Amino acid sequence: MTFESRPSGRAVDQLRNILITRNYTKHAEGSVLIECGDTKVICTASIEEKVPGFLKGKGQGWLTAEYGMLPRSTHSRMDREAARGKQSGRTQEIQRLIGRSLRAAFDLQAFGERTLHLDCDVIQADGGTRTASITGAMVAAYDAFSKLAGSGAIAAVPAKHFVAAISVGVYKGMPVLDLDYVEDSDCDTDMNIVMTEAGHFVEVQGTAEGAAFDRKVMNRLLDLGQAGITDLIALQKRSLGLA
Amino acid sequence: MTFESRPSGRAVDQLRNILITRNYTKHAEGSVLIECGDTKVICTASIEEKVPGFLKGKGQGWLTAEYGMLPRSTHSRMDREAARGKQSGRTQEIQRLIGRSLRAAFDLQAFGERTLHLDCDVIQADGGTRTASITGAMVAAYDAFSKLAGSGAIAAVPAKHFVAAISVGVYKGMPVLDLDYVEDSDCDTDMNIVMTEAGHFVEVQGTAEGAAFDRKVMNRLLDLGQAGITDLIALQKRSLGLA
Amino acid sequence: MTFESRPSGRAVDQLRNILITRNYTKHAEGSVLIECGDTKVICTASIEEKVPGFLKGKGQGWLTAEYGMLPRSTHSRMDREAARGKQSGRTQEIQRLIGRSLRAAFDLQAFGERTLHLDCDVIQADGGTRTASITGAMVAAYDAFSKLAGSGAIAAVPAKHFVAAISVGVYKGMPVLDLDYVEDSDCDTDMNIVMTEAGHFVEVQGTAEGAAFDRKVMNRLLDLGQAGITDLIALQKRSLGLA
Amino acid sequence: MTFESRPSGRAVDQLRNILITRNYTKHAEGSVLIECGDTKVICTASIEEKVPGFLKGKGQGWLTAEYGMLPRSTHSRMDREAARGKQSGRTQEIQRLIGRSLRAAFDLQAFGERTLHLDCDVIQADGGTRTASITGAMVAAYDAFSKLAGSGAIAAVPAKHFVAAISVGVYKGMPVLDLDYVEDSDCDTDMNIVMTEAGHFVEVQGTAEGAAFDRKVMNRLLDLGQAGITDLIALQKRSLGLA
Amino acid sequence: MTFESRPSGRAVDQLRNILITRNYTKHAEGSVLIECGDTKVICTASIEEKVPGFLKGKGQGWLTAEYGMLPRSTHSRMDREAARGKQSGRTQEIQRLIGRSLRAAFDLQAFGERTLHLDCDVIQADGGTRTASITGAMVAAYDAFSKLAGSGAIAAVPAKHFVAAISVGVYKGMPVLDLDYVEDSDCDTDMNIVMTEAGHFVEVQGTAEGAAFDRKVMNRLLDLGQAGITDLIALQKRSLGLA
Amino acid sequence: MTFESRPSGRAVDQLRNILITRNYTKHAEGSVLIECGDTKVICTASIEEKVPGFLKGKGQGWLTAEYGMLPRSTHSRMDREAARGKQSGRTQEIQRLIGRSLRAAFDLQAFGERTLHLDCDVIQADGGTRTASITGAMVAAYDAFSKLAGSGAIAAVPAKHFVAAISVGVYKGMPVLDLDYVEDSDCDTDMNIVMTEAGHFVEVQGTAEGAAFDRKVMNRLLDLGQAGITDLIALQKRSLGLA
Repeated sequence: MTFESRPSGRAVDQLRNILITRNYTKHAEGSVLIECGDTKVICTASIEEKVPGFLKGKGQGWLTAEYGMLPRSTHSRMDREAARGKQSGRTQEIQRLIGRSLRAAFDLQAFGERTLHLDCDVIQADGGTRTASITGAMVAAYDAFSKLAGSGAIAAVPAKHFVAAISVGVYKGMPVLDLDYVEDSDCDTDMNIVMTEAGHFVEVQGTAEGAAFDRKVMNRLLDLGQAGITDLIALQKRSLGLA
Repeated sequence: MTFESRPSGRAVDQLRNILITRNYTKHAEGSVLIECGDTKVICTASIEEKVPGFLKGKGQGWLTAEYGMLPRSTHSRMDREAARGKQSGRTQEIQRLIGRSLRAAFDLQAFGERTLHLDCDVIQADGGTRTASITGAMVAAYDAFSKLAGSGAIAAVPAKHFVAAISVGVYKGMPVLDLDYVEDSDCDTDMNIVMTEAGHFVEVQGTAEGAAFDRKVMNRLLDLGQAGITDLIALQKRSLGLA
Repeated sequence: MTFESRPSGRAVDQLRNILITRNYTKHAEGSVLIECGDTKVICTASIEEKVPGFLKGKGQGWLTAEYGMLPRSTHSRMDREAARGKQSGRTQEIQRLIGRSLRAAFDLQAFGERTLHLDCDVIQADGGTRTASITGAMVAAYDAFSKLAGSGAIAAVPAKHFVAAISVGVYKGMPVLDLDYVEDSDCDTDMNIVMTEAGHFVEVQGTAEGAAFDRKVMNRLLDLGQAGITDLIALQKRSLGLA
Repeated sequence: MTFESRPSGRAVDQLRNILITRNYTKHAEGSVLIECGDTKVICTASIEEKVPGFLKGKGQGWLTAEYGMLPRSTHSRMDREAARGKQSGRTQEIQRLIGRSLRAAFDLQAFGERTLHLDCDVIQADGGTRTASITGAMVAAYDAFSKLAGSGAIAAVPAKHFVAAISVGVYKGMPVLDLDYVEDSDCDTDMNIVMTEAGHFVEVQGTAEGAAFDRKVMNRLLDLGQAGITDLIALQKRSLGLA
Repeated sequence: MTFESRPSGRAVDQLRNILITRNYTKHAEGSVLIECGDTKVICTASIEEKVPGFLKGKGQGWLTAEYGMLPRSTHSRMDREAARGKQSGRTQEIQRLIGRSLRAAFDLQAFGERTLHLDCDVIQADGGTRTASITGAMVAAYDAFSKLAGSGAIAAVPAKHFVAAISVGVYKGMPVLDLDYVEDSDCDTDMNIVMTEAGHFVEVQGTAEGAAFDRKVMNRLLDLGQAGITDLIALQKRSLGLA
Repeated sequence: MTFESRPSGRAVDQLRNILITRNYTKHAEGSVLIECGDTKVICTASIEEKVPGFLKGKGQGWLTAEYGMLPRSTHSRMDREAARGKQSGRTQEIQRLIGRSLRAAFDLQAFGERTLHLDCDVIQADGGTRTASITGAMVAAYDAFSKLAGSGAIAAVPAKHFVAAISVGVYKGMPVLDLDYVEDSDCDTDMNIVMTEAGHFVEVQGTAEGAAFDRKVMNRLLDLGQAGITDLIALQKRSLGLA
């Protein structure tokens, strides 16, 4: 193949090294450090014994997510959102995506009037922070629910299926899996895919940042993504001792 | 087909009635009322003779979008975002989508150090406000650039290609085109597609709000969307007297 | 009379063409498009089945108003207040005026623990947006209360009297009725008058933007205003089928 | 006259005791404590050697005002606006009124590219704080400009005419001058009048808080106001040693 | 001693003239004007018949403080915090200090479910505004509680001990008591001390703005502070008629 | 000694285990993870090639600090400050303290018109986060300046002296060094001390949260703090290979 090699030397369908460290910090019910190459995100899962107002008295739970980046997690320092007094549109978009993705993984009816708060904080960014957040948050949430089940508060972890997420994109004309920062900054198309272990889509968000892309490329990107997510879910399960 | 009929009685691949009224208000360089069934959005395009700081001196233009809903455009009254003092995450997500979609339609290098501001304000909502906004904003932007070209400030309308947008989704198990509010409130999957006249993707945003969806459904949704967008772009061109 | 003619060619005591379209949008209990020449405002009235905290348990209702302008309702584009994160002093001043004026029109004791929200959104501005808002909101509120009475929730529309509003001012030295934008931008005095059908004052707000004005001019302005409001209230009643 | 006497025992056309103390604080170019009965407002005038952006390079000055109340200047403690993070609509309305009124008093062309900042801070409130602010700010501004003239920076105090302000209203059916808090809380109509020394109107803001009022009452209120302002302007001049 | 004399001519251990005026404004339960040389602060104490949420139902009271400066209390005009929409870090730091200091003076268990709000507003600043605020607030709080005790609502003023505060610092190499603005602007070390009448520390906040200071200087500063506070507490008691 | 043992079993003058890991993240010019027992803070130092407006053209540098806590760094989850839209008073107080402390360590004249941004983000809290931040930030800043010196942009690291910080307090009646969370939650007095390597004070902030403390306790606390800081500075230097 005449493909100009990827900056990292990876094959087009090759994930970066992924490491999942559980119990990374000590206070949270679930706490995971996920490393995807040089991208590092702390994902914590906190259980609160109440639900938002719109769910009070309905006997079901809620799951919500927030996302942040340390100011110098990036190449040049970003303003601190707390100091500016508001979260950027990008931050809100990402945390809404994380929340929807994880709500698809768990049965909200099955854990009582509780809220699971997921906090995904990027301590080092090198591309793919939102997909790493989703993949890591799945494990943190699983741990938190295991603890809750262990305490007898609920019967079992209310997981419907595992979800994981990955980015795919078109870099120098070639569809590739798991873009790092160098690729992401110079790609034509960037797509984030969230899938279940059954290979079903939870979210697909594709953007043509350069040239619009045709159906054939779309299909290739979906193939790459599905293969990557299969590997990620296997890794999630191994890290939890479930496989 | 044994499909339980859509609430509106439309065929699964049938758009709502779409009306595009140009020159809807008198001050803006481009001003369009787009009606997609009962969804009504005013899209204005305003040209400003300067660019944001990060582009100063680079000789190119910028295009940006904002989105809003009148408080009682919806079934029950929403809080006014200006009074609450911030735009919701949903609003920011939508206006970022509109901006990216329209930046894909025009050549930013070709209209000098100017900013095109698109304002999409929903006066009545019945599902599909973000896609209606994109489809209407394309026409408003075209009109604004025509006026600029007419004044001699630029040589021609700097359009690379037309873009339009539509929603598709899975309603009661069946992929359908152009969801209205009743369908949208009760669907399993909702996907917004932005495409060029060549049938290339600019944006794809699909969310499984209920069950995750498989690749076969994905393909059917993309087919429906592409057909709908072809019709919308034909309509845009007719309304502009270009076809 | 040697008076230099008004830019619009109107007589000094002549209103612009006023059109009131009821049921303009479909969700609100009352929804009016009011057009005063080229000024166009959507006024919706929404009934909420609760009152603010300070009125809870007192058995009475509340009425409140908000005002906004679409960013390109004006000659040059204004910042969107929701994006800036706050309403301007002008906006707040206007919505307080609308609220006070309409509270004078209805008997707050007579519609139970409900809130009537009035939203006045300017889609095209050509002077006189606050007075058009008041005049239109009167009709929208009347419609909303009629619907409530029709449902049997209240015995009758709790109107004490009709109110309408108009601007008067001193343009090129001559007192005139109903200033349009061109006149408003170049006038010495601008006064907004809100009156009941009995010709009693609800609000008078006059500002000498250029030269201060004497008592004789004041009297002439009040005369002009009263005549204009008499016509507007007749029009409100006709549009409601009450006259 | 069968008029039920005013709570304070004042005649209907009688002002409260008014005291103007110049040089009340030491840093400001002009600093006045104005006491109208138990209403006490500190008015400072600060000169800044620049103008807002919209006036840069035009060779003229600007005058602007801000207003605040100490949290316990009132009967029950109010929230501190700085702590709540925003000024109320009432505050903004008042400071806009003060600014317009004082801009009418001075020739903005005549003091160079400078801004006069007026700060009116209520330390004790007993009705009429906005009119006291205007009357006091006139003296503070005069002092600040005198200092500027004394330094040789400008030729003379750029006053066009003196302005002062007073409230009038209908209390228990009777038009009265200069309402105190007890009257203000229980009046049917409240009107604030700003006038020049020539008896010309700068601002008139009347609100029927209870019953709407007719033209005859309007005329009586304007008469009362004009008489009161004549006295206030005499007092301003005496306090400045000009009469 | 070869010490270059202080700008004010005071001895190194000499306080400025301190004046405490009680009942300075009429609405607050306690209201004090404290003058420390040219520094003037209005301290009001307001009693509210409820406690913050975190204390509800616990049968105890709360005490909290807020601090502000009039925009032109200072040499050059500062922005108004209410207009900027937030309190500075300095303001928050100071009001937290005042609150902690006064909570040390009173027995929160002994005045029921009530909140004492202290508002310290600087009308003229010449150094030492935060310590003047604490010293004045002690008297205002005492007065407010006296009034509450007088009404029979509580048995006695719930004071544990008097507290007062003063600044000390190193000016031109010499430790001095009670820095004024000229000294404060040019000092190496600035320390604020809050003490009880028994000479025990409630707060010590020292900052080396220039050279770091050694233990010997620390000791001298603490000596100076303790002596000054002894005098201040005597003055507080005299002003309250307690000594 | 009859002292009831500390919860951790440490001696009264014993620091927790302190670990300093340099180059913790890859983008920042200086990046340190400091662990004080279970308290873990990431301190990054970022160099920006410009200074704030008030220093422009003066040829000197600036150093500033920000502080944050991950929402679940604490026992129970705290609200995210970026989501609430403002930093708490506590956060602002801490970041002001960090900034002042580090400005005392470096010669601002000696690194040109550059800003050093310190970001201290707590990923796990167990007491003493502000002092750990200062001690860690010293190393991160040193590294950043070394890099700048290595590039030839400045002649040498512009350190005046090392600074470190530690807390001391009175726990169950006994002065102790380096309080952990359990001690901090139940102490009478909490004091933070920032000192230079010469044993000179940069900052002292002591608060009597329970009983006020006398001069003898003050002296003992200062002794404990000085000894602890001597050890911390030795550790800083070893970690930098300077000792």
